[in-house]
Amino acid sequence: MIKIGIIGMGRMGKIHLKNLSENIDNVEVVAVVNPSEEGQKFALQYGAKNVSNNINSIIENQEIDAVVICSPNNTHSEYTIKCANAGKAIFCEKPIDMSLEKSIETISIISELKTPLMIGFNQRFDKNFSKVKDEINKGKIGFIRNLHIISRDPQPPPISYIKKSGGLFKDMTIHDFDMARFIMGCEVEEVFAYGNCLIDPEIGKAQDIDSATVLLKFENGALATIENSREAKYGYDQRLEVLGSNGMIKVDNPLKTGVKISTEKGTVSDRNLNFFMDRYEASYLVEMSSFINALINNKPMPVTGEDGLKAMLIAEAANSSLAQNHPIKLIT
Amino acid sequence: MIKIGIIGMGRMGKIHLKNLSENIDNVEVVAVVNPSEEGQKFALQYGAKNVSNNINSIIENQEIDAVVICSPNNTHSEYTIKCANAGKAIFCEKPIDMSLEKSIETISIISELKTPLMIGFNQRFDKNFSKVKDEINKGKIGFIRNLHIISRDPQPPPISYIKKSGGLFKDMTIHDFDMARFIMGCEVEEVFAYGNCLIDPEIGKAQDIDSATVLLKFENGALATIENSREAKYGYDQRLEVLGSNGMIKVDNPLKTGVKISTEKGTVSDRNLNFFMDRYEASYLVEMSSFINALINNKPMPVTGEDGLKAMLIAEAANSSLAQNHPIKLIT
Amino acid sequence: MIKIGIIGMGRMGKIHLKNLSENIDNVEVVAVVNPSEEGQKFALQYGAKNVSNNINSIIENQEIDAVVICSPNNTHSEYTIKCANAGKAIFCEKPIDMSLEKSIETISIISELKTPLMIGFNQRFDKNFSKVKDEINKGKIGFIRNLHIISRDPQPPPISYIKKSGGLFKDMTIHDFDMARFIMGCEVEEVFAYGNCLIDPEIGKAQDIDSATVLLKFENGALATIENSREAKYGYDQRLEVLGSNGMIKVDNPLKTGVKISTEKGTVSDRNLNFFMDRYEASYLVEMSSFINALINNKPMPVTGEDGLKAMLIAEAANSSLAQNHPIKLIT
Amino acid sequence: MIKIGIIGMGRMGKIHLKNLSENIDNVEVVAVVNPSEEGQKFALQYGAKNVSNNINSIIENQEIDAVVICSPNNTHSEYTIKCANAGKAIFCEKPIDMSLEKSIETISIISELKTPLMIGFNQRFDKNFSKVKDEINKGKIGFIRNLHIISRDPQPPPISYIKKSGGLFKDMTIHDFDMARFIMGCEVEEVFAYGNCLIDPEIGKAQDIDSATVLLKFENGALATIENSREAKYGYDQRLEVLGSNGMIKVDNPLKTGVKISTEKGTVSDRNLNFFMDRYEASYLVEMSSFINALINNKPMPVTGEDGLKAMLIAEAANSSLAQNHPIKLIT
Repeated sequence: MIKIGIIGMGRMGKIHLKNLSENIDNVEVVAVVNPSEEGQKFALQYGAKNVSNNINSIIENQEIDAVVICSPNNTHSEYTIKCANAGKAIFCEKPIDMSLEKSIETISIISELKTPLMIGFNQRFDKNFSKVKDEINKGKIGFIRNLHIISRDPQPPPISYIKKSGGLFKDMTIHDFDMARFIMGCEVEEVFAYGNCLIDPEIGKAQDIDSATVLLKFENGALATIENSREAKYGYDQRLEVLGSNGMIKVDNPLKTGVKISTEKGTVSDRNLNFFMDRYEASYLVEMSSFINALINNKPMPVTGEDGLKAMLIAEAANSSLAQNHPIKLIT
Repeated sequence: MIKIGIIGMGRMGKIHLKNLSENIDNVEVVAVVNPSEEGQKFALQYGAKNVSNNINSIIENQEIDAVVICSPNNTHSEYTIKCANAGKAIFCEKPIDMSLEKSIETISIISELKTPLMIGFNQRFDKNFSKVKDEINKGKIGFIRNLHIISRDPQPPPISYIKKSGGLFKDMTIHDFDMARFIMGCEVEEVFAYGNCLIDPEIGKAQDIDSATVLLKFENGALATIENSREAKYGYDQRLEVLGSNGMIKVDNPLKTGVKISTEKGTVSDRNLNFFMDRYEASYLVEMSSFINALINNKPMPVTGEDGLKAMLIAEAANSSLAQNHPIKLIT
Repeated sequence: MIKIGIIGMGRMGKIHLKNLSENIDNVEVVAVVNPSEEGQKFALQYGAKNVSNNINSIIENQEIDAVVICSPNNTHSEYTIKCANAGKAIFCEKPIDMSLEKSIETISIISELKTPLMIGFNQRFDKNFSKVKDEINKGKIGFIRNLHIISRDPQPPPISYIKKSGGLFKDMTIHDFDMARFIMGCEVEEVFAYGNCLIDPEIGKAQDIDSATVLLKFENGALATIENSREAKYGYDQRLEVLGSNGMIKVDNPLKTGVKISTEKGTVSDRNLNFFMDRYEASYLVEMSSFINALINNKPMPVTGEDGLKAMLIAEAANSSLAQNHPIKLIT
Repeated sequence: MIKIGIIGMGRMGKIHLKNLSENIDNVEVVAVVNPSEEGQKFALQYGAKNVSNNINSIIENQEIDAVVICSPNNTHSEYTIKCANAGKAIFCEKPIDMSLEKSIETISIISELKTPLMIGFNQRFDKNFSKVKDEINKGKIGFIRNLHIISRDPQPPPISYIKKSGGLFKDMTIHDFDMARFIMGCEVEEVFAYGNCLIDPEIGKAQDIDSATVLLKFENGALATIENSREAKYGYDQRLEVLGSNGMIKVDNPLKTGVKISTEKGTVSDRNLNFFMDRYEASYLVEMSSFINALINNKPMPVTGEDGLKAMLIAEAANSSLAQNHPIKLIT
């Protein structure tokens, strides 16, 4: 029986708590830390035994084997180090930190302590994308030559969010950078990024972009393209396709329903699922189960601190490329 | 707060208990009755307060507002009448009874007592089929002329099940008969059924059929066709399409994933969802929520005892038609 | 070099002439017979050497090896017999005759004379349907248990056409009856037909129906359902699906274009091809090539007079079934 | 009646001749020039009156209104100038010339002479792509933000062809450059190209690439990505999708047939059409009709010499970008 503490009872904390207490075996949530009463109430309702607003109630609780960190981004690094020093395994939502330096520092501490650390790149656990990876591993389409990722939000977040987001590449594309590495099974060598502000001028005023296309050149010569947009009127759009020497694998968007209506105007299919909470709902459970599974079986973490760091390095390179209008080689 | 008792902790009982205790608000499961220890344990684990193997612990518990009946088919009628006499609202899995006479009798008692009774035709609450109904109601395709239902199981049940099933029409097609009435919003006037044993001769020896096509003529002149098979090697197949004066509405099968693999041999899409537990999983929650909602708001039940009875009458007519090789008029 | 005469330069005659003179090798159209000047002009323009309004210019021309008969339906039988007596091979548009008796008589004469005769069931030569047949022959889906044909016209023909059409079953369903025999590779044993007038009351006044569902029971126990409608607002609809012991084969409608437009309302695909002249355009060339090929290589005709007759017998049985509201056994 | 001369009876010349003599009204092919006897025979068979191996038989024939140039690439420029000087309208296959300088020179002569000149970018006349353009023009998806073109050949051409091809960007991507300008209705400002040799090392030895991804930045800030590959094992792949402020338009590949086979392994759809001769067959007729139509109605040419030149300029920029690993601004 793995004993878990959860730091943070926001949107992600709630999802992880529900999954841990209702849907995953051999695990118990013994403590939750959250400043607000609303979050604490939720935690009690979903079976957390011990609820407080003091981080030490988790750090110092020797019964706790592993901590799930879903507090605000700017606390990830601090809590990760504290938990690691207390000898706990860690599941931490991305990013490790908004700054690259601090991320590197954190990962190096973790590495020295040999703390089992998993970063929350949940999209790897989406049944569609993980099947793509499986089929590639089975050799279904041979050597991978090209990857194309389309990732578009249904509508831009509030400007207040944009301002604290760290910019499109660190906030949104970071998932696609990780996905590209995951699918290709190879490291990025060079990045070229085009981007601009075509949707909302307020985003431009906040020094951010809302539309981008990023090219990634991999060490084996393969190419990947990522297309991002903060707005897609037809709904959340998360697709990819991979070209290999023997064929192609493609993932289409799941739709709200399978209903098709044919009239004089043609045939209308339903809309895409609303946003990531719908589209990736099931992935959070698989993700957390994989974490628990790795702990129980003493296996390597399925997504490591290194993975978190590398996505961050690509995002930094993309920012440089955009600023300099020039491809940027990754320092490795 | 609606207080619930559940009779039966088999496959369906467990689904309803989980949904009632984890996913539906303003409701509490206060008692569960089940003969086996395994089922009782499960009930306790999922929050039932009071667990026993005695039906009276529910019937006589005056705190209980509504009873969910998911015990074996041959007990439905008896328990329904007992609960109704005890003044409780009832959700009962289909069928009311295997015999038409007993079904009619039961429904007439319920009717006299004005007991709120809902029959578990969960497929009406599938997001695909309920959307079809909504679009028809909005007039999207005008007057309905024709309906086509395809309903095929992935593989036949064991012969032991077949022998107690009441025959294909009462066991399997009954869902399609209800769906046809639901979609058409009109009553069946005449039934013609063709059927035979093409899959497993053992099914024939058990005096049952494994393949059937049933024609329904509706009072307004519209036609419906139902195609059933006990086996579909490509997976559970649940589709329908409706032709109206202004167009067509169609429901395709949801697939396991949205992954498509293209090679020299063409493009392969994934398989259908395995069976009804996957395909209709979400519908059970919507179904039970609708029951609770109707109770709380004192609204008519979304699927009534009459609905249960009418599907049964069509099944009887289909059996007669098959035996006589002749269309059969429904007695109304 | 096969020398051809064509009787009739209407819509079908023109298609066959164009295909014979532009797209098929080893064949020459030496004579065309047509009463109107317009048709004669067209024939000259497309390379017919000899044009007249006298049937004997073909019958008596000893140079001519084969005659393509596309004159009005009520002349088919007469011209077929004349051509056969003159020793010519014959391609004749369906039907052989509107009356069953005359059809039987004609086929028996042809049979005695051992005249090579092909009936114009062009849909067998559609690339989609012929691929279905090929895959079945290869055993891709095992033993065939069920066939479903959907055949809907975009809009009803003029009432004047309806009145001379011979009724829905002989005019429209006849193609589906042939398709059912072709796909199943087995003979029909029994027919049950439901039909009524749901689209245009004028069709009812003309003693015809505009909507029908026909069940066919085959000698091997397999079932087929045909759904017909004289109107489909979303466009010409020609689909089928076959269920076998190892899987299913399905044909969807080709669309006008592969363009899909996604907006807030969902994703719109294009309409079906307009009508049979678009949908089956390519099939007429394959059909005529098959005829010529059989002649050159002295092979059996790919669609025989027997085939024409059997589709007619099923249509008669469907009419009887509709009149008597009873399944009808085919006399064989 | 427009009188036409055709220079060159290779693959494209034959297509244009067949379309002009069989499928386009108000036009007559009076002369064909071709060195080989095989081509001359073909020309006679398809109705060309006058056949020779001397270019002057067309240039000096005052009866001829327009010339269709489909001779080898290195003759396009010379023949175009000769025809223009002789006062003839010109349809010329792409490219105007392999060298940019000669192309500019030729277009400037044409421009001075005000010769009606159409360049053979047939893909604009594909029913799918022209529908995309129509829908964009109607404002269906608002302001265009992003375009994605996928263009992959089924297999690489022979090395001998590669060596004379002018390189991937001028030989293959040139069509996509034109398509991007056509769809966007706006000029390219900057080009960034990644490319390498992943398919056949022989192509690399010939100093060419076989895989490429090209980014185009348009003057209005919109982006386009082109993905090219000389090999796609699943078949010829020609797709595009356009993201606009109100939605997305997408073109999928037409398939060989609409047959789908479902078995235990999932559902298999048919392969893409083989190659450009199948996929774009219909576009050549629309293209040539548009040329003739513009001539008859004295309308501007639907694809101009300028269009040919601009695609060439983008190809040159792509080559520079690839050589310098740097984005290249277009000189305008």
